[in-house]
Amino acid sequence: MTEQAPTQHNLGNLAINPGRLWDDIMETAAFGATAKGGICRLTLSEEDREVRDWFKARAESLGCRVTVDNMGNMFARMEGSRTDIPPIAMGSHLDTQPTGGKFDGVLGVLSALEVLRTLREAGYETYAPIEAINFTNEEGSRFAPALIASGVFGGVFDRAYAVAQKDRSGVTFGDALDTIGYRGPERCGDHPLSAYFELHIEQGPILERENCDIGIVTGAQGVRWFDATIIGQDAHTGATPMTMRKNALVGTARMIDAIDQIAKRHPPHAVGTVGSIESKPNSRNVVPGETFFTIDLRHPDHATLETMEVEIRTAWDATLRDLDLSGTLTRIWEQPPVAFDKGCLDAIRRATARTPFTRRDIVSGAGHDAVYVSRVAPSAMIFAPCKDGISHNEAEFSSLDQCGKAAQVLLLSVLEYDRQLAAAE
Amino acid sequence: MTEQAPTQHNLGNLAINPGRLWDDIMETAAFGATAKGGICRLTLSEEDREVRDWFKARAESLGCRVTVDNMGNMFARMEGSRTDIPPIAMGSHLDTQPTGGKFDGVLGVLSALEVLRTLREAGYETYAPIEAINFTNEEGSRFAPALIASGVFGGVFDRAYAVAQKDRSGVTFGDALDTIGYRGPERCGDHPLSAYFELHIEQGPILERENCDIGIVTGAQGVRWFDATIIGQDAHTGATPMTMRKNALVGTARMIDAIDQIAKRHPPHAVGTVGSIESKPNSRNVVPGETFFTIDLRHPDHATLETMEVEIRTAWDATLRDLDLSGTLTRIWEQPPVAFDKGCLDAIRRATARTPFTRRDIVSGAGHDAVYVSRVAPSAMIFAPCKDGISHNEAEFSSLDQCGKAAQVLLLSVLEYDRQLAAAE
Repeated sequence: MTEQAPTQHNLGNLAINPGRLWDDIMETAAFGATAKGGICRLTLSEEDREVRDWFKARAESLGCRVTVDNMGNMFARMEGSRTDIPPIAMGSHLDTQPTGGKFDGVLGVLSALEVLRTLREAGYETYAPIEAINFTNEEGSRFAPALIASGVFGGVFDRAYAVAQKDRSGVTFGDALDTIGYRGPERCGDHPLSAYFELHIEQGPILERENCDIGIVTGAQGVRWFDATIIGQDAHTGATPMTMRKNALVGTARMIDAIDQIAKRHPPHAVGTVGSIESKPNSRNVVPGETFFTIDLRHPDHATLETMEVEIRTAWDATLRDLDLSGTLTRIWEQPPVAFDKGCLDAIRRATARTPFTRRDIVSGAGHDAVYVSRVAPSAMIFAPCKDGISHNEAEFSSLDQCGKAAQVLLLSVLEYDRQLAAAE
Repeated sequence: MTEQAPTQHNLGNLAINPGRLWDDIMETAAFGATAKGGICRLTLSEEDREVRDWFKARAESLGCRVTVDNMGNMFARMEGSRTDIPPIAMGSHLDTQPTGGKFDGVLGVLSALEVLRTLREAGYETYAPIEAINFTNEEGSRFAPALIASGVFGGVFDRAYAVAQKDRSGVTFGDALDTIGYRGPERCGDHPLSAYFELHIEQGPILERENCDIGIVTGAQGVRWFDATIIGQDAHTGATPMTMRKNALVGTARMIDAIDQIAKRHPPHAVGTVGSIESKPNSRNVVPGETFFTIDLRHPDHATLETMEVEIRTAWDATLRDLDLSGTLTRIWEQPPVAFDKGCLDAIRRATARTPFTRRDIVSGAGHDAVYVSRVAPSAMIFAPCKDGISHNEAEFSSLDQCGKAAQVLLLSVLEYDRQLAAAE
């Protein structure tokens, strides 16, 4: 125990510095800055190396030890009073979409850094070690699939598979790691965590719409992706009576509307979307004879997701039959729903209760590193609101106030969890 | 009057030779033959020159005089007993789509040639001169718009506009005419006709489906083309609740279905089609924020066409309002309905009545040279059935029997019309 022990019982006095966090966000936004105020910082690029070097230097200046695993994941560790228990980690990712914003991922990593800095400045010694993590290739824009490094970390993907993935120019993930000097010695996955807290922008409109400062993310929706092809018959738009048509696009239109209706029948969480569509021959005066489209279905509950799929398949059968069409509807990918750890969520709730911030429970509709990390460590997430729900876009924005409040909750959540660990001793 | 005069009262004895017509169709199919049994004979191409030379030689071998106007339209004239009245013409076009079939257009021109040959062989002298016409660039595949040369002939397009049209490589229509040597001296349009009969494949499924040998084409549908753009808001498919979406593709889907329903509410002639669609950003996990699509609306009656447009605009307003979308719906082109000439139709009816062939009245859903010629001369069309309604496709097919029956009706129609002219003397 150190002199600072008493402050462990007075967490509310510790406060992150929102302006300093904001400055970090703006400073790192220069690495890959775009003309429109966004960031293009593809994973394992030169810009990624720059921001990684920056992160490493800042963490080391706080007295942290920075280690890297063999997927390029970075761990900045600040020791606690106990060196024999796994760290409580915070983190997210520093890579961006090709026309990404300044906050997606970045907010989580830089808030983690701000938390470490706040603790260091306050002379607050935690019970467990505390870490800030930067996960490699969350976005998946350069190397598919997304979340590949937290996926290896969480045992979802095999590392050999991951490092062999190629970008569009044929460079492998492994070679790209070497090129920027971020293939570390630690085997990815050999890094136990006592807990993992990820702060992220919501990437949706709910918090802003409801004037909520904090989203307490109870889990992540299950996702099912489908590919659909409908086959009809090309025909002349003028010479083919309505009764003799096999119009693949009309069938597709009915499915698009049906999927929208089905999702709306399971409020408030269900979402269903046809995001991509192609029609052939796509000519003004030819009845479309073939279409391809995608379906994205999400719900936090497995049973409801299953019900939605059944309802969609029922609508599919009826549509094809009514319009004399044929086709295939194939589920190409599934991610089961994730419920975040109760202990982590309790810590976030207690932390939030120490603040005057408005908050609500929310389910993540997007994938995040925490989803994979949750397979190997107690995990939960905190959402900050973002303007108009816009993300993966140079216009992405959260205010200094919004970022600061969320980072404060991250700090208090970690300390709450740490206190719980100490109490359980 | 000649020795053959009595045969004018016994038209039924005159018969075209279906096998000879079929041989001509197969022989000319070599000019631009594709591997899959179709034809690629773009207008004013080298292949087009070859088939034109062939047509000219065959017509001249029958004693016809072949003239060419300054749009490349070819007129093969067989004199009748009266040289001071305009010819009764038959015809269509010899150009094809890039992957066109052997019958679209070709059947009309080669049947006209077969009619001339039949008359010559029988020693039958008509009252009026008889002509076989080959119109330039019916398809519009190389030079837009389609029907450009019959359009100049019918006073719809200005010749200066037409010859300035460029293909994708920048060659003008006028230069292409010169290159193949088919810019004739006659001013296009200075070629009066007593009547014009066009035999064409149906390009739709009605005749085949009803086992009809002959379609008596009473007119051409009016056509209205629209461009539509719907604006919503791009959003994350996972993070955006159904109630907060502005999904442009769902709005488009409702319109596609509505247009289909509206056309079906005006049977049997109304057709309505969305042939082309684009969705942005067209990504699997982004709610579509913008769409573009086309509408093709046809009906033989102006009032019904107007009603359908009103119904579509009503559905449009409701859809945008219900889904919180905005957009523009613009009519970009209109072709009024055409009613073919009663005298020509009577001639076709009398001709068909002389045969045992099954027949029905039909309205052309596609555009044809006869539509523009009808502006300056009494005109009508005869349809032959084609397999599965397929056209603009290498698989396009009409049988020897189907082609022969239709060509026989063409022969008799011309002679009926000719007899009418003689009787009116």
